[in-house]
Amino acid sequence: MRHDPARLHAPAYPWSITMETRYADMDPNRHLNNVAISRFFEEARVRFNWHLLTAGPAISRPRYLVAHVSVDYLEEGHYPGTVDLGYGVLAIGTSSFRAGMAMFQHDKCIALCESVLVHRGETGPAPLPGPLRDRLQAYLFNTGASA
Amino acid sequence: MRHDPARLHAPAYPWSITMETRYADMDPNRHLNNVAISRFFEEARVRFNWHLLTAGPAISRPRYLVAHVSVDYLEEGHYPGTVDLGYGVLAIGTSSFRAGMAMFQHDKCIALCESVLVHRGETGPAPLPGPLRDRLQAYLFNTGASA
Amino acid sequence: MRHDPARLHAPAYPWSITMETRYADMDPNRHLNNVAISRFFEEARVRFNWHLLTAGPAISRPRYLVAHVSVDYLEEGHYPGTVDLGYGVLAIGTSSFRAGMAMFQHDKCIALCESVLVHRGETGPAPLPGPLRDRLQAYLFNTGASA
Amino acid sequence: MRHDPARLHAPAYPWSITMETRYADMDPNRHLNNVAISRFFEEARVRFNWHLLTAGPAISRPRYLVAHVSVDYLEEGHYPGTVDLGYGVLAIGTSSFRAGMAMFQHDKCIALCESVLVHRGETGPAPLPGPLRDRLQAYLFNTGASA
Repeated sequence: MRHDPARLHAPAYPWSITMETRYADMDPNRHLNNVAISRFFEEARVRFNWHLLTAGPAISRPRYLVAHVSVDYLEEGHYPGTVDLGYGVLAIGTSSFRAGMAMFQHDKCIALCESVLVHRGETGPAPLPGPLRDRLQAYLFNTGASA
Repeated sequence: MRHDPARLHAPAYPWSITMETRYADMDPNRHLNNVAISRFFEEARVRFNWHLLTAGPAISRPRYLVAHVSVDYLEEGHYPGTVDLGYGVLAIGTSSFRAGMAMFQHDKCIALCESVLVHRGETGPAPLPGPLRDRLQAYLFNTGASA
Repeated sequence: MRHDPARLHAPAYPWSITMETRYADMDPNRHLNNVAISRFFEEARVRFNWHLLTAGPAISRPRYLVAHVSVDYLEEGHYPGTVDLGYGVLAIGTSSFRAGMAMFQHDKCIALCESVLVHRGETGPAPLPGPLRDRLQAYLFNTGASA
Repeated sequence: MRHDPARLHAPAYPWSITMETRYADMDPNRHLNNVAISRFFEEARVRFNWHLLTAGPAISRPRYLVAHVSVDYLEEGHYPGTVDLGYGVLAIGTSSFRAGMAMFQHDKCIALCESVLVHRGETGPAPLPGPLRDRLQAYLFNTGASA
């Protein structure tokens, strides 16, 4: 449960996105629900993947399988208002990569997330295509964590 | 990403619950969405906590803070149909405990989950009350993992 | 807003289904959220459509477009516990039909729903196939409302 | 099912809000799910109610009960992208009011919604307070529909 302190600072993330919270993201405790927070990380992941496709010359659209997601809940989040999601690539493997995300509200980190995305070929995991790998490199998280 | 093989078998879990999937649990890929799977684990967690309260003489109702949730997605899940969730306590600490869950469909393990629940006092984490701790002991996961 | 009193009684519905509520169906008011109640009606609609396909010899699977849904919220619904959904066909038109549903908890009607489903052909609304129409007839709501 | 044509035009609504769609708003048909569309209308309703409180000198915060929601689904909605929600008061009664909403994507109306909100006192419906009533008047839908 100890976190890399670098992961708690929004500017450390090479890509970010701001999202509106919704009334429906709250649970009976009147703060942002844990699973709703996972939804925000899902959305950031999907948007980053779209972003990557359009961040240069056309590359073929990869299919991913989300193999792992872990979330550390650090602070309560609130509605209404926006949240800022930071995204960085933590490590690039042969057929998968690990993404690190953080969710901020009023500049405070309220949750950290790690996801492992496996590149999916016709019959199972397949090597990350070179152009995709190159593009992922450009979004490595600042501390340069390696696989 | 290596899993304790014991965690993949439904009978190893001291508590379990069967739930119906919903149409809304599917995503555009037509299988159970990753975050929807996290919703099932949330539901199992909530139900287990209720179960624990009623599993013996009255004890005061604890308040928890979910500090950590990690999920490994092993297989695709499908709608319609039921899923079986197994629940076991992996480790009991001073003011928190770690729960291990697994989700099965047609006897196949489709996802594993670990959650850390922190017992919440008025001003922050507080020691698990003795009666609650005793009760948690009865649901330790079979392999007897320790903190 | 006046309701046909017959619509408030569970036995009047020719088809029904029981569903478990989930923690996530509650909103900050700690009762079942309005939109979550719409989710239950969606689930009943989907399940009834599946049921219809298997309620006799094979018929081709129709595609529907949901054109209209209205819900009257009569009483608060609660978690945990089950809800019972009743379903009846209120009227059968040329290319669409109108379904009436009701949601009960502890035998009290907490919400009523009307849905209009349009049968969808390749280029737009298409006449309901005869075998499907015949099958729908068997589930007409008791008071025999007509289009 | 015939709609007031005035309801299909975004500029006719005295209040509006733009929202981001989410990946999770899609269903297996890969377009915005019907119930997810109801979620957007819920969000617009909640936001309008907040807006109303802050649209002038402080008034006491009313509690509402949503008694009725109906939605007409006119066109498919898509992800990613934004949707625009228009909101107008259609009619003001003694203890309730009726709101008309519309959802637009790329300037096309994809859904219409009517909601009835009942002002809730300690023991049941209660007359709309004068200051609230005055404020609602300012948001009457252009065609000036009456109760």
